[in-house]
Amino acid sequence: MSREGDGTMDGNEKYGKKPFKRSKSHFADRITADGADGWPVEAGRYRLVISRACPWASRAAISRRLLGLEDALSLAVTDPLQDERSWRFTLDPDGKDPVLGIRYLHEAYDARERDYPGGVSVPAVVDVPSGRLVTNDFQQITLDLATEWTDLHRPGAPDLYPQELREEMHEVMEGVYRDLNNGVYRAGFATGQAEYEAAFEDVFRRLGLLSERLAGRRYLVGESITEADIRLFTTLVRFDAVYHGHFKCNRYKLTEDPVLWAYTRDLYQTPGFGDTVDFDHIKRHYYEVHTGVNPTGIVPCGPDLSGWTSPHHREQLGGRPFGDGTPPPPPPPEEEVPAAHRP
Amino acid sequence: MSREGDGTMDGNEKYGKKPFKRSKSHFADRITADGADGWPVEAGRYRLVISRACPWASRAAISRRLLGLEDALSLAVTDPLQDERSWRFTLDPDGKDPVLGIRYLHEAYDARERDYPGGVSVPAVVDVPSGRLVTNDFQQITLDLATEWTDLHRPGAPDLYPQELREEMHEVMEGVYRDLNNGVYRAGFATGQAEYEAAFEDVFRRLGLLSERLAGRRYLVGESITEADIRLFTTLVRFDAVYHGHFKCNRYKLTEDPVLWAYTRDLYQTPGFGDTVDFDHIKRHYYEVHTGVNPTGIVPCGPDLSGWTSPHHREQLGGRPFGDGTPPPPPPPEEEVPAAHRP
Repeated sequence: MSREGDGTMDGNEKYGKKPFKRSKSHFADRITADGADGWPVEAGRYRLVISRACPWASRAAISRRLLGLEDALSLAVTDPLQDERSWRFTLDPDGKDPVLGIRYLHEAYDARERDYPGGVSVPAVVDVPSGRLVTNDFQQITLDLATEWTDLHRPGAPDLYPQELREEMHEVMEGVYRDLNNGVYRAGFATGQAEYEAAFEDVFRRLGLLSERLAGRRYLVGESITEADIRLFTTLVRFDAVYHGHFKCNRYKLTEDPVLWAYTRDLYQTPGFGDTVDFDHIKRHYYEVHTGVNPTGIVPCGPDLSGWTSPHHREQLGGRPFGDGTPPPPPPPEEEVPAAHRP
Repeated sequence: MSREGDGTMDGNEKYGKKPFKRSKSHFADRITADGADGWPVEAGRYRLVISRACPWASRAAISRRLLGLEDALSLAVTDPLQDERSWRFTLDPDGKDPVLGIRYLHEAYDARERDYPGGVSVPAVVDVPSGRLVTNDFQQITLDLATEWTDLHRPGAPDLYPQELREEMHEVMEGVYRDLNNGVYRAGFATGQAEYEAAFEDVFRRLGLLSERLAGRRYLVGESITEADIRLFTTLVRFDAVYHGHFKCNRYKLTEDPVLWAYTRDLYQTPGFGDTVDFDHIKRHYYEVHTGVNPTGIVPCGPDLSGWTSPHHREQLGGRPFGDGTPPPPPPPEEEVPAAHRP
């Protein structure tokens, strides 16, 4: 949910004096097929706002691509660097989101709830006609894209949240969230040695378990890509670029674990995953925004990214990436990540 | 020479507003066989002061071990963490060096030159009877140990500075110094992106050249260990532990270059090299002292060090580690690096 740069707005998620604790999403309305919360699924009505730097927001970007929701749910990409008013649309002409007509994401928050004291976070889904924020509930958004937006899915869209696998998925995702997705932040934003070391142990214990699990199976749960893989991928793809050095998760690099490295490369090379990843946004965000960790703001030149496109041989494990479905076509040209930001 | 923590005493070597520039040694008297500078080689007269954290000081520690000078030239090891009065003997009983009777190395500097305005650096050689600093000239100290202290060398001591190789050695050592020994500091203490990137390129261009050079030959110059290997080793052994993350030299880890990794491991496993290396002192010094780079002072748990003792197979390249000489015996028990600080 990437509020970590917004210390002035949400001290809880910022490098500070207290142990790092991630806040719950405040705006948890759901967009559903039946519109029970007042927000029915509707093509063209909503706008998904992400930062390509943010692992939580990138989950939604991947789900949207895999499900072929590009035409139904438009996409706004923020500048990777927040300023004191948080996420902003400085990458767009005149610094304004062309659909919402706003300069800062906080304007959609304000339209929803005046003087909301919490942080401004991505991913956020905004109702275009009213300009109001609907939800920033990163744990629910992707599940709803998979299950509530089905009428608008592309032909051949995979089932990312299969009924019969949900129990197992949630067990896996819970451990991954606690120890890894959020564990790297607990390590990186720790203010004391003991707090850091506990998080470090969680991160690498979980990586070890995942490496064992994935040695003989292509995907985390079942035989095809699910939400569980998406949630793991967005942390692993950032591991060597930012968590290893910046967050001091440095027992070894992802590239040093042959199983996890091949697993992550496999997903990276799968349409819908790697085409959402912007290593430039990722590195600049973490290294420039977290001045409490990196006061110089210097962004490392490394790591060498050339390995990301090398063969992974994971197809030998079997599995059916899209189940009964098919891979998505390439992203629309206006959503392509610049070549200079890719391996 | 490790004055980088002493910004108050030598701003030039500290992370600051100006580009990083390493100062020349101020005290450059030489201890020679003929005593031309007033300091004749004499068993038991001098004390070598090092920090095991410091790559420049560690050169002297290795030379002393390889040449068997332990009995002739005693050793003082400072705390890896300086305070505002710089290097101190807080590891010793009552916080005093037992031979010099001083708490801070600066006392030996003061005895030599009252109110010397420069930094206090290691390695330093102190005249025990007078308590005065003789030299902190890290580039000359090891050459003199190799060539002027020969009467006191152990039987079987290698020739670390062979007459016929000196020209080639100096050419190699100059490039290694500029791009690598000092290049990692230029990267790590850079205050701007361009300055950092230039240093980063130097570091990895030089690593590439060295990797090519060492692919087919066991040692840098000639067929045996020389001063050139010692100077390269003390930087490479610190590379993954501190320079990769802390100094952002992260195109790849040493362990990712098979040639350089095997070369460094080979030396590490050679008596006189690895037995001087204290990874705990190395990591704590860099991460705790450089608050301008790492304001939290948190020391990373990684990297995994277990690989350091794995087979390197470099003996297949031939070479004669000690030339016509022999390996040194183990270090005296009082100089052993604690097991917990080793792989």
